[in-house]
Order: sequence, then C-alpha cells, then structure tokens
Amino acid sequence: MAQNLIARHLVDLDSPVSQAMRYASNGGKGLRAFLVLESARLHGIGSSRAGFAAAAIEALHAYSLVHDDLPCMDDDDMRRGQPTVHRRWDEATAVLAGDALQSLAFQFLVLCDCPAGAKLTLIGRFAAAAGIRGMVGGQEMDIAAERAAQPLTLDEITCLQAGKTGALIRWSAEAGAVMAGENHSPLGRYGEELGLAFQIWDDVLDVEGDAETVGKAVGKDDAAGKATFVSHLGLDGAKRRAAELVEAACDALSVYGNEAETLREAARFVISRRK
Amino acid sequence: MAQNLIARHLVDLDSPVSQAMRYASNGGKGLRAFLVLESARLHGIGSSRAGFAAAAIEALHAYSLVHDDLPCMDDDDMRRGQPTVHRRWDEATAVLAGDALQSLAFQFLVLCDCPAGAKLTLIGRFAAAAGIRGMVGGQEMDIAAERAAQPLTLDEITCLQAGKTGALIRWSAEAGAVMAGENHSPLGRYGEELGLAFQIWDDVLDVEGDAETVGKAVGKDDAAGKATFVSHLGLDGAKRRAAELVEAACDALSVYGNEAETLREAARFVISRRK
Repeated sequence: MAQNLIARHLVDLDSPVSQAMRYASNGGKGLRAFLVLESARLHGIGSSRAGFAAAAIEALHAYSLVHDDLPCMDDDDMRRGQPTVHRRWDEATAVLAGDALQSLAFQFLVLCDCPAGAKLTLIGRFAAAAGIRGMVGGQEMDIAAERAAQPLTLDEITCLQAGKTGALIRWSAEAGAVMAGENHSPLGRYGEELGLAFQIWDDVLDVEGDAETVGKAVGKDDAAGKATFVSHLGLDGAKRRAAELVEAACDALSVYGNEAETLREAARFVISRRK
Repeated sequence: MAQNLIARHLVDLDSPVSQAMRYASNGGKGLRAFLVLESARLHGIGSSRAGFAAAAIEALHAYSLVHDDLPCMDDDDMRRGQPTVHRRWDEATAVLAGDALQSLAFQFLVLCDCPAGAKLTLIGRFAAAAGIRGMVGGQEMDIAAERAAQPLTLDEITCLQAGKTGALIRWSAEAGAVMAGENHSPLGRYGEELGLAFQIWDDVLDVEGDAETVGKAVGKDDAAGKATFVSHLGLDGAKRRAAELVEAACDALSVYGNEAETLREAARFVISRRK
C-alpha cells in the first residue's frame, strides 16, 4: 500500500528522478510500514487512516538506502536484487531522488488522518529520528568507523545502530499510539528492542546469507575488517542476543494481550528472515 | 537569527557533519528568512513566534546549496566566498549534512508558534515546494538542460526557475499569512514575481559580477553555452524584465499599504544587489 501511495503521487511524472523515486520504493520488505499499520490497528486506527504514515516511513527509508548506496558512502551496486539507483541512472539522479523522497515523506505525514496536535507530534519525532541525532548521525558514525584505524566497541556499535536504523523503527512502532494521542507507549520499548535485533540479524545475514537471496552484496563487513555484532559476539552469540531482544520486545507488549500477536510474530520474523 | 537557531540546535555536537551543517548555514543573504519574518510581521506575528519558520527555510536553502554544489551536480568549489562543503570536508559529509539540514527544517517548522491547523498547512506547502514538483524538480530540469543538445526556450527556463528557486521564495513570502490562517494572500503573487526577478538577476550577476563579490564562480553559464534569461533577452532586456517583475511584485502588495514598504524595498534590493 505504501508503494501504491508513492506511485500514485508520482503518476503524472516520468522524468528520471521521478522514475528513480518509484524504483527505489519498490521491492522492500515493508517492515516499517507494517509496524505503523499494526501499531495503528492496536489503537483502533484503520489502514485507510494510517496509510499515509506508512507511506511516509517507506519513502524516508527508500531515500536513506539510495543515499547510503552512493559511491561516496557505501558504494553498493545492488539493492533488493536490482542495480542501485546511481548504477541504473547516475549519481545526480540518486542524490535528487533521495532528496525528493525525504520531502515526499513529510508531505505524506501531513496527509495522514489523526488530530492536528497528534500529527504534529508524529512529524516532529519523525524529523528528529531522521536527522543528525538519529539516522543521519548513525550513518555518519558508520562511515567514520570504516575509515578509522580502531574498530568500534560493542557499545559504540549499539549506539550507532540505535541512530542509524533504531530511531525510525522505533518511530514506526510508536506511530499508531502517537496518532491516538498516547505519547508514551510500551510500543516505544518494543520498537527499540526490535530495531537492535533487526540490525544484529543484518550482521548475521552478512555472514550467513547468500547475495542472491539477500538481494545485495554480503561478506562486505568481514572483508573490510569492520567491527559488527558478529565480530564481537560470534555468530552464535549474536543470534542469542537477537533472540533475547526479540523476547524482551514481545514482553513489552503484554499490556495489549493477544491483540499484539501479529507484532510478536513480526519480531520473530525479524530474526528468522533470510533477507 | 535563523543561523542562531541552527547553531543552538547543534550546540552539543561537533562531528564533521554537524560542523558542516553550521558552516553551510552561515554567510547567506538571509533573503528567505527576511521574507518569512516580514510576512509574519504584516500579519501581527512577531519574530519570536515566526523565528522557527525563518530558520526552517534557511536550513532547507542551505541543504539545497550543499547538494547542488556536489561534483555530480554543478561541481562548484566556492560558495558564499568559502570552499563548498565537499571541498572543505568530503562528498559523504556533504550528502549527509544536506540530508540532515532538510530533516532539521521540518523539526523547526513543528516548533514555530501558530495554531496547529495553520502549522500543518505551512508544513505541507513547504514539503511540496521542496520536492519533485518544486525545488528538486527544477534542479533536475537544470541538470538535464546542461547535458542536452538543445538549449532551453525562455518558457522552459521560466518553468525551471519557478520550481528551482521560485517555489520556496513564494513559500517564504506567504508564510506569515499562512501562520495567520490566510491561505490565499496577495503575498503569493508577490513571492512569485519576486522569485523570478531574483533568478533573472542571478543570471545578470553571472555575466556582470566578479567572483570575489558574488562569492562563487561567475561566467559559468556562458562558458557552458547554457541558455539563460540573459542569453534569451540580452543583458538590458533581462534587467528590464526583472524591473517589471519587481514592479508587479510591489503592486501586488497594495492592499497592505505602507506597512509593506519593507517588502517593497526588499524586492528592489533583489535587482540591485551585487551578490
């Protein structure tokens, strides 16, 4: 659905940048959109009301991948089983498509259906999670670590990931509560644990996965001598840690009872996925 | 003031990306922030209430300059009399600083002081003006034109500039009216005429200005054989057209009487400036 809203917004455009925006929004797991919609459902908010919030987080996520893949960043050729945007088009198109996807995310947030005050909280938290104290800050630490002589400690990696992927996964999990006017919800804790488990599992897949299934290059971290959860904890230790986090994430949802079973399943999926 | 709010937001950070965000926000003319504050004053909204809207537009403008200067875009070495961000740091830092400045712009908008409904209108229009149907769309046309065999027609340049610089200058001029709950204001017309005059004058400065005063390379358009307002209208014709637009912009403000004199002076400044 998130992809549909993005495609619908761009329907009358066919410039390379608009094509690249659509292209970059396709083929993902849709985890973040799923979290938004489930979190909304838990608070009695249907998918037609929360759809734009789900589309917003997928647009923002797509932008972050397009920019992270750039030659000056992680320099990746493949993403979701397809050439990255700068390989399929060029770097200028990739920079602009990412930029416009970020703007589009905020346009979508304004359109989602909840009271104005709740919507402003949603937008403010989204912007904070995306910026220098959230996703961009984490990406900066990641790039710096690749160029540094000293590998990161486990605490540093945890802090990096809390920004790079954690902040927006947490936002997604909390979105429904915020839309319903609940600014402090157990979903925050759930999102935080889940986000970290998600990233640990990404490190596991970089070791255990095959590029075709994962849809992007694997083994990159090890080849680069990069410190990861796996290099610190070992493969089994990393899997154990991820499982503990998923358990804690599920426990955080106890107040919602069986209604939250789908979110618990999603958490378990995160540490069983092959891509 | 806009610079101060950006600096204050980043006060406890000193990573290269946060340094680059501050650096990129310094030394501009502050035209857009000025328009926001004057537009607000005309509607009885003081600078303490509109300050975050002014900071938002300057953060967004700074991001657009950092990305436009990248090697894959306009490949510029100097901006506002200083090395561009990717020259002073590197490309990754420039991409990330621009990305985080865009997020910061939206954080600031959420903080500005007006009723929630008006603020959402302000945010929605801002996001639209920044995106593929506004600034990014204009920048895409500009990059495509540089690579195309055929120079652009005058209509095409006008359309390009309406997106690239016009949409956000218009937003700035209207911001105070929107904050006051007026969604259709003569300031929209004023902003549109002013934005186009501003861009025509940029083309004039590219021919007449010297690099030291202007603060960036000049003569680039002519060297690249690029179609501009000057190449179509001639130097005198372009100046005449800019003056007509400024007159129309000033006329659009008649309903505000003498109260709008500062905005009229700003419009006249736009076509007398040397940088």
